[in-house]
Amino acid sequence: MTLQGWSLPLSPDGTVSLVPPPPWHFSGDALGIDFRADPAALAAVLPDGMTPSSDGDATFVFVDWSSASEHDPRTIADPARGQYREAYVVIPVTFGDGRAARVPYIWVDNDLSFARGHIQGFPKKLGTIAISRAVTVGRGGPKVEPGATFVGHVSSLGQRLAHGTVTLTEPAIDGYVPKSMRLPIWHTRHVPDLAGGPPLVHDLARNALVDFACTDVWHGTASLSFHESEHELLHRLVPQSVLGGYRCSLAFTIVGAEVRPA
Amino acid sequence: MTLQGWSLPLSPDGTVSLVPPPPWHFSGDALGIDFRADPAALAAVLPDGMTPSSDGDATFVFVDWSSASEHDPRTIADPARGQYREAYVVIPVTFGDGRAARVPYIWVDNDLSFARGHIQGFPKKLGTIAISRAVTVGRGGPKVEPGATFVGHVSSLGQRLAHGTVTLTEPAIDGYVPKSMRLPIWHTRHVPDLAGGPPLVHDLARNALVDFACTDVWHGTASLSFHESEHELLHRLVPQSVLGGYRCSLAFTIVGAEVRPA
Amino acid sequence: MTLQGWSLPLSPDGTVSLVPPPPWHFSGDALGIDFRADPAALAAVLPDGMTPSSDGDATFVFVDWSSASEHDPRTIADPARGQYREAYVVIPVTFGDGRAARVPYIWVDNDLSFARGHIQGFPKKLGTIAISRAVTVGRGGPKVEPGATFVGHVSSLGQRLAHGTVTLTEPAIDGYVPKSMRLPIWHTRHVPDLAGGPPLVHDLARNALVDFACTDVWHGTASLSFHESEHELLHRLVPQSVLGGYRCSLAFTIVGAEVRPA
Amino acid sequence: MTLQGWSLPLSPDGTVSLVPPPPWHFSGDALGIDFRADPAALAAVLPDGMTPSSDGDATFVFVDWSSASEHDPRTIADPARGQYREAYVVIPVTFGDGRAARVPYIWVDNDLSFARGHIQGFPKKLGTIAISRAVTVGRGGPKVEPGATFVGHVSSLGQRLAHGTVTLTEPAIDGYVPKSMRLPIWHTRHVPDLAGGPPLVHDLARNALVDFACTDVWHGTASLSFHESEHELLHRLVPQSVLGGYRCSLAFTIVGAEVRPA
Repeated sequence: MTLQGWSLPLSPDGTVSLVPPPPWHFSGDALGIDFRADPAALAAVLPDGMTPSSDGDATFVFVDWSSASEHDPRTIADPARGQYREAYVVIPVTFGDGRAARVPYIWVDNDLSFARGHIQGFPKKLGTIAISRAVTVGRGGPKVEPGATFVGHVSSLGQRLAHGTVTLTEPAIDGYVPKSMRLPIWHTRHVPDLAGGPPLVHDLARNALVDFACTDVWHGTASLSFHESEHELLHRLVPQSVLGGYRCSLAFTIVGAEVRPA
Repeated sequence: MTLQGWSLPLSPDGTVSLVPPPPWHFSGDALGIDFRADPAALAAVLPDGMTPSSDGDATFVFVDWSSASEHDPRTIADPARGQYREAYVVIPVTFGDGRAARVPYIWVDNDLSFARGHIQGFPKKLGTIAISRAVTVGRGGPKVEPGATFVGHVSSLGQRLAHGTVTLTEPAIDGYVPKSMRLPIWHTRHVPDLAGGPPLVHDLARNALVDFACTDVWHGTASLSFHESEHELLHRLVPQSVLGGYRCSLAFTIVGAEVRPA
Repeated sequence: MTLQGWSLPLSPDGTVSLVPPPPWHFSGDALGIDFRADPAALAAVLPDGMTPSSDGDATFVFVDWSSASEHDPRTIADPARGQYREAYVVIPVTFGDGRAARVPYIWVDNDLSFARGHIQGFPKKLGTIAISRAVTVGRGGPKVEPGATFVGHVSSLGQRLAHGTVTLTEPAIDGYVPKSMRLPIWHTRHVPDLAGGPPLVHDLARNALVDFACTDVWHGTASLSFHESEHELLHRLVPQSVLGGYRCSLAFTIVGAEVRPA
Repeated sequence: MTLQGWSLPLSPDGTVSLVPPPPWHFSGDALGIDFRADPAALAAVLPDGMTPSSDGDATFVFVDWSSASEHDPRTIADPARGQYREAYVVIPVTFGDGRAARVPYIWVDNDLSFARGHIQGFPKKLGTIAISRAVTVGRGGPKVEPGATFVGHVSSLGQRLAHGTVTLTEPAIDGYVPKSMRLPIWHTRHVPDLAGGPPLVHDLARNALVDFACTDVWHGTASLSFHESEHELLHRLVPQSVLGGYRCSLAFTIVGAEVRPA
């Protein structure tokens, strides 16, 4: 009998794999803070061929995710398996003759998401992420209403890396999608070879998405700070100005990927 | 200068205290599973003077909480501080000439809630709790709609203690409050004396609540299992039958406590 | 039948209590960094009647603990139960007509230790603590030998609070005990009353210890930094100079407490 | 400028990579339990070409690791980065014309180790692992002496997967190395392609090790239990008999890998 599985660990029937095969479904509540960094610092974290905006536009995003697997009911059935939080910086770029985006740094608190991200090219590390949940009744947390403040922060290895706030002002017009959610993200898939020589995998990839939805978008005023850690270089992208923020719910399904040479 | 603070740690200005003074505000999403246990097993976890129902009624509850402090804005401003999950069993009882409830066992994942609970008499231990979050868009998690399944589980020291599911059937009628949320919970406040002799504190207490609200209540079918751990006796309350479940949002403010001799 | 237990939760046979009764046995590996802070800042975290040294002496200590309970074999039998890490600042003081010590701030990563500490008067919060383990073979970590560097750090709610290092120079002479391990620590036991009015408990207590041992003491050069958090005031005790450090193993048994009015 | 880094995340100077390039140094304290499982169940978790012993020999191992990177001083300098615990089952096999070993399932509590493991082919998932530390003084934990019991357990997603104990009987003769530490482990490196088609990487690899050392080996009597989880198949390898156990310290350096077609 041959071992089965889309990802490690392989097993007799393939059911032990950490990452089941796509399609994967995602639903999340996001907090985004649009800021401007030194354009040269942004350029320094982009691969050849990508150019940041001359204004140094970037967005820091916190998302409280729920995920499911089309072919594995256990992902949605176990909230410890399918739910997770992540935090990342995303940079809008010019890439070839079009617009795209790049995520140079990202942290997540769940091993399924960690491994699933690396398969896509998301350069994930584990972190500890806290994000204000919206409440619908009472005064224990913020409601989705003008003046309510939502907070996100991320740390790794016990060091705070980023802290952001969004104080809601008004709902966005119907159909509005924040820019940082609109652009295709091109990742570098990269797998080193312990046996030496060039990487086993080194190319560019973007997810093939269907059923994208972005709802309940609110605009807000925002704050954002980055902090130093000897393990990270996020602080080089320190906000020079904070333009504003948003809160929204979003959803999509990843069905595959498109790949280009790096 | 004298050290200040409502709770430990005391500090020059009192701001380091783990638990700020009440009022405390709570908003949460709860998943409750009504079951029947051996009435004798329930009676065995009640203090003198409390009697369980002859049917052995009890409820296991998972709650995803947000909390705030009237006098300390840091609780709501830091989601890592104010938000937490807890899981507990609650038993409706006859107490004196009235109806009340008792929580013999409860687990929580946050030290503020742990210490704040012990001040009330909640016999909290730390645990790891997972609860399905409701999503509003997409297929990453369950929506609040008929047929959607919400799941909760709790473990402590790496051992699963309880696992429950509620599959929504229909919304409750307006104003309905699940029984397990309606009864005053009488705790035993109990502080041992390391110097020997009787406990420093040993009495009965119930919280003084205001602004109670219970909304978005849905009924559902349910499942519930308890598991053994050498550190716990929850499994003695093993469900003999599962009556059904509910999902709701709830809120209240704790402003103080009423106390009786134990 | 009456509920049993030395601490909450009470249960039919008392075996569910988070904290079993003393005696409690402790064995640990400690990393201590002796420093000087602003004497006024030290005085500000001491209760009436305690005076710091005029030089502002204090020590920051990281300990990797194993603990056992004389009357509960489960504590030593489950490493997730009995083992934990803690970090604290300790201040040598003049108290009445003698020498003593005070721990104004302390963090720990285990709920048994948290609750057991509060029973003693240790003002514990939960934190995340990392401490270099000594290795005996290979190059994966530091060995106990001249030039080896041991590191400790503590964070809480995702924020680094303190980071210290000790680079070993030479073993201490036989029988040497670091000062920060020699003095009796007087805590304030303090339990607030949710029903209002004065605290239910408010006195001074020191542990009754037997079988104290301190072995394998090494001196070293050291570094220490404190970091700000809106939840803490540790940074007011910022090191003005770092005098040196030590690494040692220590052990003792707590059998009870001595109490005085606060 | 081109992005640098041996592993993701790539960055301007390569210093943000989660996994630095080898050599990697490891020092650990291991607890191993030798057992016999159903040979057919063992065969079912082996790749084509590997055969278990006819007796169904296998070992479950818990290790408390410290790790360092030859080219990155931050790994050893931050105990939160370099230290971790892992738990795995290892099966001695006949492979081609020789003896080898295979690790079908393994859990670890640190993202550096997770990613570094996947690069080697270790099929790691995150878990929570507890292992008794040896103490040298006092009664807080077990000493390395006859009759002392060391315990390990591993859970994942809040479910206990394995629990083992070793009660020391006597030191092994000088130079003795437990069988489970002696055999070369052949992994399957396996990276799925989100773009569809065959895996991007699928081959067999074994680490190139130098400076292997195994010291302070003690024999012991042992116990071992496996527990079910819907996410795992470890319980199919349930011990039919437990042969004994050992405790040892071990160290080695990984300098590269040898690769074969799968």
